Amino acid sequence: MKLLQSLFVITSLVVTTTCVAAEPLASWQEGARKHTIIEFVKKTTTEGSKDFIAVADRVAVFDNDGTLWAEQPAYFQLFFALSQVKQLAPDNPQWKTTQPYADILQGKMPAHMTEKDLIELVMNTHAGMTSEVFTQQVSSWMSSAKHPITKKPFTDMVYQPMLELLTYLREHDYKTFIVSGGGVEFMRAWAPDVYGIPAEQIIGSRIASEYKVIDGVPKIVRLPELEFNNDKAGKPIGIYNAIGKRPIIAVGNSDGDRAMLEWTTAGAESRLGVIVHHTDKEREWAYDKDSKIGKLDKALIQAEKENWLVVDMKNDWSVVYKK
Amino acid sequence: MKLLQSLFVITSLVVTTTCVAAEPLASWQEGARKHTIIEFVKKTTTEGSKDFIAVADRVAVFDNDGTLWAEQPAYFQLFFALSQVKQLAPDNPQWKTTQPYADILQGKMPAHMTEKDLIELVMNTHAGMTSEVFTQQVSSWMSSAKHPITKKPFTDMVYQPMLELLTYLREHDYKTFIVSGGGVEFMRAWAPDVYGIPAEQIIGSRIASEYKVIDGVPKIVRLPELEFNNDKAGKPIGIYNAIGKRPIIAVGNSDGDRAMLEWTTAGAESRLGVIVHHTDKEREWAYDKDSKIGKLDKALIQAEKENWLVVDMKNDWSVVYKK
Repeated sequence: MKLLQSLFVITSLVVTTTCVAAEPLASWQEGARKHTIIEFVKKTTTEGSKDFIAVADRVAVFDNDGTLWAEQPAYFQLFFALSQVKQLAPDNPQWKTTQPYADILQGKMPAHMTEKDLIELVMNTHAGMTSEVFTQQVSSWMSSAKHPITKKPFTDMVYQPMLELLTYLREHDYKTFIVSGGGVEFMRAWAPDVYGIPAEQIIGSRIASEYKVIDGVPKIVRLPELEFNNDKAGKPIGIYNAIGKRPIIAVGNSDGDRAMLEWTTAGAESRLGVIVHHTDKEREWAYDKDSKIGKLDKALIQAEKENWLVVDMKNDWSVVYKK
Repeated sequence: MKLLQSLFVITSLVVTTTCVAAEPLASWQEGARKHTIIEFVKKTTTEGSKDFIAVADRVAVFDNDGTLWAEQPAYFQLFFALSQVKQLAPDNPQWKTTQPYADILQGKMPAHMTEKDLIELVMNTHAGMTSEVFTQQVSSWMSSAKHPITKKPFTDMVYQPMLELLTYLREHDYKTFIVSGGGVEFMRAWAPDVYGIPAEQIIGSRIASEYKVIDGVPKIVRLPELEFNNDKAGKPIGIYNAIGKRPIIAVGNSDGDRAMLEWTTAGAESRLGVIVHHTDKEREWAYDKDSKIGKLDKALIQAEKENWLVVDMKNDWSVVYKK
């Protein structure tokens, strides 16, 4: 009897230790938004709840730029492209007299790039090499580059409250995915370490590539052709192609995420749509409908109608960047 | 002291129960092939081994038709397409007088289909509906259809030794993926239940699709256009796009898998390439270089040079179909 009692106590202790995790969403201020997220996760993951979602269907998708990390004054991937221009300049002497390359090589932010210029810049810096070499270039840049304003490494500009949300969801058996307009192979070089999201759960825009056996060695070579633009209406398609099911939770911050949020929250059963509203010009940036980067206009209007949760960065987050 | 001793005994029992799994690969005959697989898994998953592979990199890819389930006398997805012709006939009265539809509607296997006919047949039966309706059609067919020769449900024609291999790999923290020339959404309707592989770990051929808000309801509509052919040199590309890394283990059965095997086993560190050779005309089918379905010619020649493991179905498997 004593043995049984002791065992019962020990078992209880073990169970208690296992179940009491750190306070969830510690960098989220107490209030309506934090409460809504926690209640949503509880009701969709508690067996017997009428809103219970089976583990296999617990899919949560996150935009990256402006949602998981900052995106001002330009998408961080652009800073990588600019840096690559300098790396690749010795092989491209014509750049010294061609814009925007001449400006970039002189350390100036290129002015007035057209969309064609921008696409050409990406192709010149993201294609033409093998998959391994590209990944190595991104990793090398990421390990030393600093943000021009904050002077932080770019991977230190991920949002602490979002890291906590990713962890909280995974603790409740949600699979977390990135669904970004950014380049998928650019993200795969660093995002698995930074967010704890494995490479195959990262969905992004993609250039074409080709399988080739060169001198007896099989290689994947990146081609200068945009194959898939994972933005706007491309996001639900990117999700359908990669995951094959409608997410339960979608989190974004701009009009580029509107279709993803709309498709997610139109699903039967419980769904949660979240928009990060950049309202904190002291600790980060404040912008929405008039911004060139991360423009948030139609999605903010639609949020009210669709009952999407609009997170007010200034008031809802006690910490912004990764601690 | 007694309590401690009892606890020790109980703990030992618990540990023992947890660690001693069923005999791995029980339906594989003792011999060189079984031994090679087990030794490979051991050396790549034992910490301290010089061939140790980190958990994040443990990716194993499997072809489906002829590798995880049978593929004779025609790919099983074709039987689904034929059945759909009958389902969709009322909306397509012209089929009564058009080949190959007229033959199909009379229950005959269509003769002499050109590749153009075949693609048109797939488009007519796999496109034009929403994603949800298509999945429902596949599930409904799969729950009642029988193989014309064995009279078994198609999902009973998955290979027991391969189910055991999938389980064994997952027990050693390998992530298992399907990489098939078959349609990705066709497979996602049943493969997660049958193989224990989640939808997002299934890579296949794909038709285009479009995001549309119809009468206020967001939908994904399937379009009659082949967007990606996940076969031959398409397989390494499909893997690169979806997973972003080179697998450690690749398993296939035909020349369509040659590029995937070649790219996988050309990687640095330990790699394993496996070919299932259909040698059992009593229990299954026997075919290789002269077969229209699952032709195995160049890959069988290359197997010797590349040291791929060629599984002899007749002699290496004590059971063929799922028990």
